Amino acid sequence: MNRFQLEVRIKPRPGLLDPEGKAIHHALDSLGFEGVDDVRVGKLVDLQLEAPSEEEAIERATQMCRKLLANPVTENFRITVANEPSDGGRPA
Amino acid sequence: MNRFQLEVRIKPRPGLLDPEGKAIHHALDSLGFEGVDDVRVGKLVDLQLEAPSEEEAIERATQMCRKLLANPVTENFRITVANEPSDGGRPA
Repeated sequence: MNRFQLEVRIKPRPGLLDPEGKAIHHALDSLGFEGVDDVRVGKLVDLQLEAPSEEEAIERATQMCRKLLANPVTENFRITVANEPSDGGRPA
Repeated sequence: MNRFQLEVRIKPRPGLLDPEGKAIHHALDSLGFEGVDDVRVGKLVDLQLEAPSEEEAIERATQMCRKLLANPVTENFRITVANEPSDGGRPA
């Protein structure tokens, strides 16, 4: 068994309303930020999985998205494999 | 002015409690998914910005994170530039 760090990005489907994104867009305008055309908000799920292979890890994560993490009616998801356990992020 | 599609990933800082991640971890166990070691949940913000340069777009997004999007005490953020407007994601 190997350990895989997967990143799952779940976003509202294009064309669907995104109230949270709209609210953030409005707040950014109120704060004086200019040039913002669109804001969409999604969910980020970091999964640390033990699996025999990378393919199997991705397959399991796909099943997790279908059964629990994403709403198939309103959301799309994308799974990527991180080379190393996430460090939690830093400003780019 | 050019238009930039930025992806902002906001995650709970390592070591901090993540109740939503714990809840999802528990739910995955209940659904019979094996080999899940850890689950952390963050936020994904897609920003479409008009800015004179990529550097300026990233700088603005960094300010947005500091002032509104991320909680500096509990969260880290990372900003990446997408080459083209996001298509909303598909299963990998």
